[in-house]
Amino acid sequence: MRFNSQTSCDGVSEQLFTLGEIPGVLWTPEGAVGTRPLILMGHGGGQHKKAPGIVFRAHRFVVERGFAVVAVDVPGHGDRPTDEEYHRIATENQARVEAGEELAPLIAGFQALVARQTVPEWRAVLDAVQQLEHVGVGPVGYWGVSLGCGLGVPFVAAEPRVRAAVLGLGGALASAEAAGRITVPVEFLMQWDDERVPRAQGLALFDALGSAEKTLHANPGGHGEIPAFELDSTLRFFARHLI
Amino acid sequence: MRFNSQTSCDGVSEQLFTLGEIPGVLWTPEGAVGTRPLILMGHGGGQHKKAPGIVFRAHRFVVERGFAVVAVDVPGHGDRPTDEEYHRIATENQARVEAGEELAPLIAGFQALVARQTVPEWRAVLDAVQQLEHVGVGPVGYWGVSLGCGLGVPFVAAEPRVRAAVLGLGGALASAEAAGRITVPVEFLMQWDDERVPRAQGLALFDALGSAEKTLHANPGGHGEIPAFELDSTLRFFARHLI
Repeated sequence: MRFNSQTSCDGVSEQLFTLGEIPGVLWTPEGAVGTRPLILMGHGGGQHKKAPGIVFRAHRFVVERGFAVVAVDVPGHGDRPTDEEYHRIATENQARVEAGEELAPLIAGFQALVARQTVPEWRAVLDAVQQLEHVGVGPVGYWGVSLGCGLGVPFVAAEPRVRAAVLGLGGALASAEAAGRITVPVEFLMQWDDERVPRAQGLALFDALGSAEKTLHANPGGHGEIPAFELDSTLRFFARHLI
Repeated sequence: MRFNSQTSCDGVSEQLFTLGEIPGVLWTPEGAVGTRPLILMGHGGGQHKKAPGIVFRAHRFVVERGFAVVAVDVPGHGDRPTDEEYHRIATENQARVEAGEELAPLIAGFQALVARQTVPEWRAVLDAVQQLEHVGVGPVGYWGVSLGCGLGVPFVAAEPRVRAAVLGLGGALASAEAAGRITVPVEFLMQWDDERVPRAQGLALFDALGSAEKTLHANPGGHGEIPAFELDSTLRFFARHLI
């Protein structure tokens, strides 16, 4: 793990790092000492580790709860080189949609493929970040919607360090099987008028989650229109399970 | 409006009253002076104005937010005399269920019938309680699940003083039409394994709500098993919209 820069803003320390080929960013309270809960955040499709929504949420997690937050670029996103195989599949899928195929199963298949790479990458990131003195081996949470849900479900299912997860804007096609192996508390976000994930698919993914404690929060609006008050709920959810 | 008793416990003043033939109870902060938000709570079927769940929620609304809370016995419940017509219909419905008819449409029809009486009753209760100096004409919220939802949906649709409502454990059969006329923010509670309200019926009622801001909170478990953390969410929801 190599640190490339460190800056501070409004009480939040931001460290850019690379772990092997993975570019990442770690946010912690300025001057943080000792172990704290760590949230791994997965970004959406076409976004990256420092997408505005990721940065905004990370700052609130750090400032209001003293958490550490880590995010990395998914293959083919942000500061990572174009992945030729993924690029080829994405281009093919685009052509298939234009030829009249349904989008959801294509997205599902693609996310399952990428997850085979990101699950071990994210586990390695946890290993590395938890060795830092100002993070330590505390409880871990996962936050990710849309692509961050498609990749997050198999990650949360595979990683016993994750004790609570916020997931959503994803459907059962991609990850119902892995969802059934999740047993930690989950807050699941759905957009009632999601133009990308059919309502029945979202409900089926919530239904498939194996967790005894799982809460579905559904709100009106399209894929990108999660209301602001859900972030307050997310903060309380993680505080309830990680502190 | 006639007050029959006043007691205090843990900072909460409890006043029993009758308004015409309606027995009711009003909870306010001990020594309360001046106008405050008022929550009308509808109880469940077979329960009454002082059912343990109602009292527990009322105390938290009063102690943590300074709200006033009012609850009354629904016809045929609590301190009200047996209503012969309702009793006859309930007995007939029981026989029809035993003969193999579906329960949900029978409940829906019965609740619609009772609502024709309770909507004007509850409006009269609001009129009377808001004349009290320690309640006043502040913002009004409604809380009710199960029977309290079946009666609450037409009430919230009809009563412009209600600015926010927590509803749930109800289905579209009873009240989809009235739900479409509701425009205030709604937090809607569903139990994912509800043995009395089919899942599709609950989702359809949420869908039918006309509100631009509505949030579905669905949790695993049966009809009576809403998790405790939802009350925290309810408190924040009312605080957001009534304070």
